[in-house]
Amino acid sequence: MKLDFITKDFLLETDFARELFHSYARKAPVVDFHNHLSAADIAGDKRHENIGLFWVCADGYKYRAMRMAGFDERYMTGDASPREKFDKWCSLLPHTMGSPLFHWSCMEMKNVFNISEVPDETNCEMVWEACNTLLATPEYSTNSILRGFRVEYATTSDDLLDDVSVHSRATEVSGIYVSPSLRGDSILAFDKESFDPWFRRLGEAKDLQEYLAKVKERLNLFSANGCRLSDHALDNGFSYVKTSFDEAAALFACRKDLTAEGYLKLKSFLLKFLAGEYAERGWVMQLHIGAERWTSSRLRAVAGPAGGYACPGSPCDIRSLCDFLDSLDVRGLLPKTILYTLNPSDNATFATLTGSFSQSGVKKIQFGPAWWYNDHKYGIEENLKNVSAYSLLPGCLGMTTDSRTILSFSRHEYFRRILCNYLGELVRRGELPQDIDFLGEMVLDISYRNAKQWIYE
Amino acid sequence: MKLDFITKDFLLETDFARELFHSYARKAPVVDFHNHLSAADIAGDKRHENIGLFWVCADGYKYRAMRMAGFDERYMTGDASPREKFDKWCSLLPHTMGSPLFHWSCMEMKNVFNISEVPDETNCEMVWEACNTLLATPEYSTNSILRGFRVEYATTSDDLLDDVSVHSRATEVSGIYVSPSLRGDSILAFDKESFDPWFRRLGEAKDLQEYLAKVKERLNLFSANGCRLSDHALDNGFSYVKTSFDEAAALFACRKDLTAEGYLKLKSFLLKFLAGEYAERGWVMQLHIGAERWTSSRLRAVAGPAGGYACPGSPCDIRSLCDFLDSLDVRGLLPKTILYTLNPSDNATFATLTGSFSQSGVKKIQFGPAWWYNDHKYGIEENLKNVSAYSLLPGCLGMTTDSRTILSFSRHEYFRRILCNYLGELVRRGELPQDIDFLGEMVLDISYRNAKQWIYE
Amino acid sequence: MKLDFITKDFLLETDFARELFHSYARKAPVVDFHNHLSAADIAGDKRHENIGLFWVCADGYKYRAMRMAGFDERYMTGDASPREKFDKWCSLLPHTMGSPLFHWSCMEMKNVFNISEVPDETNCEMVWEACNTLLATPEYSTNSILRGFRVEYATTSDDLLDDVSVHSRATEVSGIYVSPSLRGDSILAFDKESFDPWFRRLGEAKDLQEYLAKVKERLNLFSANGCRLSDHALDNGFSYVKTSFDEAAALFACRKDLTAEGYLKLKSFLLKFLAGEYAERGWVMQLHIGAERWTSSRLRAVAGPAGGYACPGSPCDIRSLCDFLDSLDVRGLLPKTILYTLNPSDNATFATLTGSFSQSGVKKIQFGPAWWYNDHKYGIEENLKNVSAYSLLPGCLGMTTDSRTILSFSRHEYFRRILCNYLGELVRRGELPQDIDFLGEMVLDISYRNAKQWIYE
Repeated sequence: MKLDFITKDFLLETDFARELFHSYARKAPVVDFHNHLSAADIAGDKRHENIGLFWVCADGYKYRAMRMAGFDERYMTGDASPREKFDKWCSLLPHTMGSPLFHWSCMEMKNVFNISEVPDETNCEMVWEACNTLLATPEYSTNSILRGFRVEYATTSDDLLDDVSVHSRATEVSGIYVSPSLRGDSILAFDKESFDPWFRRLGEAKDLQEYLAKVKERLNLFSANGCRLSDHALDNGFSYVKTSFDEAAALFACRKDLTAEGYLKLKSFLLKFLAGEYAERGWVMQLHIGAERWTSSRLRAVAGPAGGYACPGSPCDIRSLCDFLDSLDVRGLLPKTILYTLNPSDNATFATLTGSFSQSGVKKIQFGPAWWYNDHKYGIEENLKNVSAYSLLPGCLGMTTDSRTILSFSRHEYFRRILCNYLGELVRRGELPQDIDFLGEMVLDISYRNAKQWIYE
Repeated sequence: MKLDFITKDFLLETDFARELFHSYARKAPVVDFHNHLSAADIAGDKRHENIGLFWVCADGYKYRAMRMAGFDERYMTGDASPREKFDKWCSLLPHTMGSPLFHWSCMEMKNVFNISEVPDETNCEMVWEACNTLLATPEYSTNSILRGFRVEYATTSDDLLDDVSVHSRATEVSGIYVSPSLRGDSILAFDKESFDPWFRRLGEAKDLQEYLAKVKERLNLFSANGCRLSDHALDNGFSYVKTSFDEAAALFACRKDLTAEGYLKLKSFLLKFLAGEYAERGWVMQLHIGAERWTSSRLRAVAGPAGGYACPGSPCDIRSLCDFLDSLDVRGLLPKTILYTLNPSDNATFATLTGSFSQSGVKKIQFGPAWWYNDHKYGIEENLKNVSAYSLLPGCLGMTTDSRTILSFSRHEYFRRILCNYLGELVRRGELPQDIDFLGEMVLDISYRNAKQWIYE
Repeated sequence: MKLDFITKDFLLETDFARELFHSYARKAPVVDFHNHLSAADIAGDKRHENIGLFWVCADGYKYRAMRMAGFDERYMTGDASPREKFDKWCSLLPHTMGSPLFHWSCMEMKNVFNISEVPDETNCEMVWEACNTLLATPEYSTNSILRGFRVEYATTSDDLLDDVSVHSRATEVSGIYVSPSLRGDSILAFDKESFDPWFRRLGEAKDLQEYLAKVKERLNLFSANGCRLSDHALDNGFSYVKTSFDEAAALFACRKDLTAEGYLKLKSFLLKFLAGEYAERGWVMQLHIGAERWTSSRLRAVAGPAGGYACPGSPCDIRSLCDFLDSLDVRGLLPKTILYTLNPSDNATFATLTGSFSQSGVKKIQFGPAWWYNDHKYGIEENLKNVSAYSLLPGCLGMTTDSRTILSFSRHEYFRRILCNYLGELVRRGELPQDIDFLGEMVLDISYRNAKQWIYE
């Protein structure tokens, strides 16, 4: 099957959309404020051994599709070789039509590797060779590829105890501003087995007071290394209950023996504490709400905590979320916040919340881009429609990849095409004035400038 | 920026839609069954001092957008002058593109004030002068403007203790049938500080029995003054628990000292009592479900209870809503009911409920128009799609403004354009027969006749 | 009104869609894996007395619409004659425009009975005569009509105690593979009055152990008679709590005196038990989630449990659903499962769950077709969009009718037209390659082969 539907005007249905994209969006730099790249790989300008390891192995999205198709787990998390996994994935690729994986994969093959056929079981040998030949050249090192995507700023996700000194080296080596961001989950993970070893690595703490002090020390270190954002994975529809320091201190003292309610209270206290610390440091707080990561415990054991089997959870408990945000707001300690939801039935609500906590002179809340399983044409369009209708589209933050591989930075282009097409449609329908200059600047703001300005300028 | 996209065919994409609008919808009178106008202003045919006071000051929608844009609160609820607030709002207006405020504002400027440019920071002086010049003429008095919108019937929202005798004078003066409707919230507001003074104004009551009697007296007064509708704001996803008179009487006796559960029971009892009273008087009951009005307590203190910072709450508790409606239905005391939701993820459910409680010969439940934050092209289309798919579109009630300013009566035109375009699209796609006479009559029914017939004829 | 909008290209907006439909979808056989047909009617090749009985009487969808329109209950569940009910329904039909009933009814009249006008109050006499004349001919017997719809496989819904021996005779007589499926609800219906008589018919059981043994015996009988599927109606957003055999046995012993929690636990135990039994027999388990069947108790008394007054319930409790599926998965006893939801705000979540429980070499979870009130163009398109975006469209199961009348088998054609149009649109927008062979095969898979292969081949 010819890979010829990925043209230069892919997804751009009107002349207006094409002009918006080619004259404005296409050339704008990329600001990626949440991803899971390795700063060390950038610092080392890592080379990729083969397209199997680079493109297929450890990609939860592809594994998930292969599972849905009924493939043997051997080809995902099992002991099949990178080549076998690659071949297997290629055999499925045409049968992902309609899904984001089809668009993502075709864009990556066509635009990065100049492949002219949709990979499938008949041509995978050819694709394997062609890609590997390119990967062996310096033009396909990590940083060459990232620069090809025009990346100007990229934020990795780092545990409180991770080494964040590598980021400045990554910045130097790559010419891309690489900064750490705090993935704060382990700080509240009292109910996980992983907490004890983590706590020991932190140096332990005799009580809550000392715990908070040690956490603050590390936050300072993150700040010193250029951190401007944090994020938290808040599953199960979000829960928060007001908890005093004394209550939390008592719960911390017996943290190995907490009830579900005790854990919720301790977690609530710490989340609020951390949010206040973020506010004081001028960081942006990202709340990733609404994932259900405990589905098949069998797959969790096989594939690890991010193995591609999660799903959206129940809708967000809005009352609880408002209580949390308000508890910070009343003390003047609400940081700039990006709300993400995995459950699209929360879209309208989250978009509306952008108007609920602003403070004189500060945009406080942003509704984040279509996240994770929502990152496809349908999901991005739903996100744009909701942001337009319930918030202010011209001020939104555009796209971030949440990427675990540098190839997926092509999704910024994907997003921009969808954005330009969306605006072109509104113009075609007579819903917006046909003002290319104004809308072109708006596209630049959404694609690039807003995130830069709001997050790190 | 030229304001030339608001043409006579604005939003009408097909010939069929244009014919539906121009030959049927455009000239039909307006029945507005829920708004927050002042009957006194109509009785006095109020003149508007300037476009700042008339158009910007106290408009929660605009304040909300200004907050999202990060403006200083001074320009919203603060001490800035009407002119300053107006200028500030104009500076934002082009940057609300995609939001309902952009369409609403452009329609109001173009169609009411004949302004030919989108107001912005460069031309706001001109717009200020042009509008104020017109506002100084009798053609721009309250009633002239309302008549320009072809308003035939308008229902204000009135507290049980409000003076509703002014409505008949308003009707006489304006030639528009102006009737009160009961905003019933204060009757159940035992948990609010405002209850005690309100209770004293009612004349107090020694027990529940007397309280109900006093409420009934006032309901009769409303009936005598032409009231045909009530409405209740039921936040937090709706809650109802069956409660006997004796239980309620005991709770009423200690109403200053109720638990959350006690309050819910007392409120449940009273809501059911009131619904039965509405049924006996032939009133329509409007339930506004799904708002979350407690977000930022800081903004609540600054901007008042309707200050533009609310958001949708969690989805409706359908089991609870059915229990409530059924408790009335089994006693033959379910009034005609309009269900509104602020959370669009409830749309399909609310539309389906229109088929769940009908009684021989009576349409009992209607799904209300796209309410509040849903009142935009996207929200109205979603409402129409859901009413079509899960209820019966030809029998629905069309539009109401929920308006706090007479300018927003232009939203009836907005709705009708969207409705005609929606039907025109269905015809273009071959989903409906190309029968202009039949569909024209349907448009008239939806835009005007259904509400008239169902509510007050 | 001419019935001329139901053309051979009805709903097919592009050339590509038309080719997909006419060259691929149209002629494919029908596999209908969930309906409420009577195997006895097929075995007897039942003739239909008149179009009133055949088309209107006992149709919950039509009754519901007639109630929404405010008709007297006499014309629905009351003592009006079939002719009166038919006339009344015809008088409403044009006023259901926009609803699925309009499309379904017009397709049935045009394609099955060759009627050339939309039935209404002016022509219902003509329609009555024309249809009845045809119904008197052998070409309009039950099996002739089913064969006209190209039905290859049809699964009825049968209670555990129903006679399932009739199915093989039905298969012989009709030339259609007619198999039973288990409607498992009565096995867990301890809280219903109907349980005691049902339990006596089963032969009673002195304890849980014996109860399970008797149930298993009947399951074996179903298997022996060709059963490959079961289904459960799980209302109220789904609830499951882990329950041991001992706990369940104790609850079973006092089953006439259970609390809500006790009932939930007993039901949870039994559902898990049954699911394991389905897995061992290689059956597909269908979970129909999210209906709220207790709305008006008055209508329930008048119209029976499936009388057309239900609505979607609150969103699914995803945590509970995952607990249930995982409890089976960890023991290797998760059967192939089809998840249906009546609440479309669950669409994205259910579609995503198709990737959460797969096992080496087996597709485990499918998101079912747009169910019940969602079975219309809008709902089917939303279903297809969600399956595309959150699952894998090429592997999905297509359509099933959930039908109580053989006329509604025309909905397979309806679905296929919408599917072809959906894919044609994607091609037109440049989102998919213009590959008619590949997409044609995909359409055949979705319309026919996938269900056949996954369910009974």
